[in-house]
Amino acid sequence: MYHRERKLGRGVALVGAGMSKFGVQPDKTNRDLVVEAFADLKHSVDKGLDPDDIEAFYLGNFGAEMWEAQSVIATLSATWLGLTPKPAVKVEDACASGAVAVRQGILAIASGLYDIVLTGGSEKMSALPTEWTTTALGFGSDTAYEASAGFTFPGLYAAMASAYLHKYGVSHDEMLRVAIKNHSNGALNSKAHFPLTIRDFMKMRAAKAKEKGQPVPGWADELEFLNDPTYNPVIAWPNTLFDCCPVTDGAACALLVAEEIAGNFTDKPIYIIGSGHASGHDIHDRDTLTSIPATRLAAREAYEMARVRPQDIKIAEVHDCFTIAEILAIGDLGFFEEGKEAAEAAGAGKTTRDGIKPINVSGGLKCKGHPVGATGVAQVAEIFQQMRGEAGQRQVQTDTDLAVTHNVGAHGTTVVVQVYERR
Amino acid sequence: MYHRERKLGRGVALVGAGMSKFGVQPDKTNRDLVVEAFADLKHSVDKGLDPDDIEAFYLGNFGAEMWEAQSVIATLSATWLGLTPKPAVKVEDACASGAVAVRQGILAIASGLYDIVLTGGSEKMSALPTEWTTTALGFGSDTAYEASAGFTFPGLYAAMASAYLHKYGVSHDEMLRVAIKNHSNGALNSKAHFPLTIRDFMKMRAAKAKEKGQPVPGWADELEFLNDPTYNPVIAWPNTLFDCCPVTDGAACALLVAEEIAGNFTDKPIYIIGSGHASGHDIHDRDTLTSIPATRLAAREAYEMARVRPQDIKIAEVHDCFTIAEILAIGDLGFFEEGKEAAEAAGAGKTTRDGIKPINVSGGLKCKGHPVGATGVAQVAEIFQQMRGEAGQRQVQTDTDLAVTHNVGAHGTTVVVQVYERR
Repeated sequence: MYHRERKLGRGVALVGAGMSKFGVQPDKTNRDLVVEAFADLKHSVDKGLDPDDIEAFYLGNFGAEMWEAQSVIATLSATWLGLTPKPAVKVEDACASGAVAVRQGILAIASGLYDIVLTGGSEKMSALPTEWTTTALGFGSDTAYEASAGFTFPGLYAAMASAYLHKYGVSHDEMLRVAIKNHSNGALNSKAHFPLTIRDFMKMRAAKAKEKGQPVPGWADELEFLNDPTYNPVIAWPNTLFDCCPVTDGAACALLVAEEIAGNFTDKPIYIIGSGHASGHDIHDRDTLTSIPATRLAAREAYEMARVRPQDIKIAEVHDCFTIAEILAIGDLGFFEEGKEAAEAAGAGKTTRDGIKPINVSGGLKCKGHPVGATGVAQVAEIFQQMRGEAGQRQVQTDTDLAVTHNVGAHGTTVVVQVYERR
Repeated sequence: MYHRERKLGRGVALVGAGMSKFGVQPDKTNRDLVVEAFADLKHSVDKGLDPDDIEAFYLGNFGAEMWEAQSVIATLSATWLGLTPKPAVKVEDACASGAVAVRQGILAIASGLYDIVLTGGSEKMSALPTEWTTTALGFGSDTAYEASAGFTFPGLYAAMASAYLHKYGVSHDEMLRVAIKNHSNGALNSKAHFPLTIRDFMKMRAAKAKEKGQPVPGWADELEFLNDPTYNPVIAWPNTLFDCCPVTDGAACALLVAEEIAGNFTDKPIYIIGSGHASGHDIHDRDTLTSIPATRLAAREAYEMARVRPQDIKIAEVHDCFTIAEILAIGDLGFFEEGKEAAEAAGAGKTTRDGIKPINVSGGLKCKGHPVGATGVAQVAEIFQQMRGEAGQRQVQTDTDLAVTHNVGAHGTTVVVQVYERR
């Protein structure tokens, strides 16, 4: 097989990032959300941004066709941003659409063709009833072999989760501890879909019971609450409601520029020093259910390009569309060993905000929400803020000189891993 | 406004191209069509292609969501081509999805990240009833302002056509002469959806009348036939049936490599020396209806990069989704003057196979068919064959050292123009 070292023709810096509020927003379209995210990004560019200087636009979006009867969402969004006639490209790789858009922006700058590229991602998902949304999301699996056999995404990840629990003798409680951690993080993120800890949910449920004159439930702790099927029903065993990310509307943007002009925008650029991208087989045709091979390949490419090791990375935003997905991710990214170590990392405090490797300090997809096309770009926005020390009350105290984003398409058919450096 | 010369970091060569049969193919999915196009491409690579050497895959596709309930068609197609785990990216910009995919392949190579990239496009459109297909195609317009106001694509192009005929005092017959020319070309293309001249259609209709015992119609010439509403009904005035391209299933592929390794694949590479890409406003928000501004901008970028002038170009494949679209294209590309000159070019024999500037020698979208995502790549495949003198019975006798492809998304919201050189 033909092989050569993966190296970009020139360096790329991240000089601005922003996101819309994540949540159910009945009065907003994809275009509104992109406009909101871009407005947020503009505030983040220290020395200011003249939108006329943007040379090209890449937008990740999974399903405006299904939720808005709308294709060409990149060119339409570009018009609403005032970017027309700049080239606008929509990329779609399911839930990795956002990171793939960012990566195409990186390649476009490295190609020498552009110096200043706006990347973004958006998804408007709340416009259809939940069962239709589940069907639309199923378009991201193999319609011929998976969706048609009855698989939905909670089911696909349940297959991976049950294999993991069985193979490594891990308890479902370890999955729930990922949810507890990510809600603890996201409670500090005002843009999160549910800026609430699990304790907040417990209080809300207890208050509701009291209001209805029902006996007020008393749970010893979060785990007891999450193991109460009245309040946390099973969706697809072992995935309970709180193992699943919500259905969210939202958008995010990231501004990339050629390294040599980064100083025109900020004195604190973040450099994207590694980018890896791999595809994977569908679940019916994969060698393992306890690892996502495309994550391992994309991570290897990104680490080699960046000349870093997993242990050098201080924080990471990883793709936790389901709690098991975070456990798979931190194993495949080389942060923890696949099996008990990865599964128990959240519960053992290793991946909490004050742990040795804080994971999903934004709240992750689980708590922040997962507007499919936006997710990969929102991860970039979080890393941008954290590395610049601008994350407010959720700022990690670690000295974050190296960070990673990890965005998964579908059940592992696309993965993009990127490495960021603060110099 | 920040400006600099558009220049690629390194040169890109086209060393192989192929396409599936274009037509209504009820037993084939998008994936089948991509496999067929890739098999055809492999035969075109003079020194052979080991698929393992392909480093990345870009696929243009407009609407597998609508016609196959399938997103992620790039990764699924990559698996069927045996390319997994190579990165696979789907791009969507309506009818320009194919050329945008090719352009992303060019950028990816120029970035230094890859040396060998497969690009492709596909569309499976015949799986729904015609009225649903018209609705699905409408997703490519602005759903909020155009489709919802009753516009369909025949209507959008009818608005441009009626403005053109009115402004320049041109007859609808000039549009029909584009159809006559393109069917004359496509009749020589065995992969075309309708490899038939207009005279062939006349004979078929006459034979059918005779078979039914009806009076056999006698038309003096093609124009009289095309002006007979019994046989060529109005779809959206002035667009008649024969002004519109058909609804077609098909796929195409193009293999791009870094210029310096082109010799590993062929001694007759074609160099892509210019690439331009621009977006445009929707029709309700555009300054002119008799020009597509994005074509002019994309052409300028491509010509400047290639350091050529429109008059240097020997042949071109342009986007004739409707006959008026070819008239708009050859004006906006600078081949003929907008107005009477462009409108009368086909009728005057200037754009025929033996004319001064052969246009759409493949048969164009009108005759070859327009599987939306495939079109931009099929244009590349035609240029590849013509420039290498391998187009068989439809080979243009011009010494084609410079050629152009022109692919339009929707009603001009995306345009990609590329310049090819044979050295």
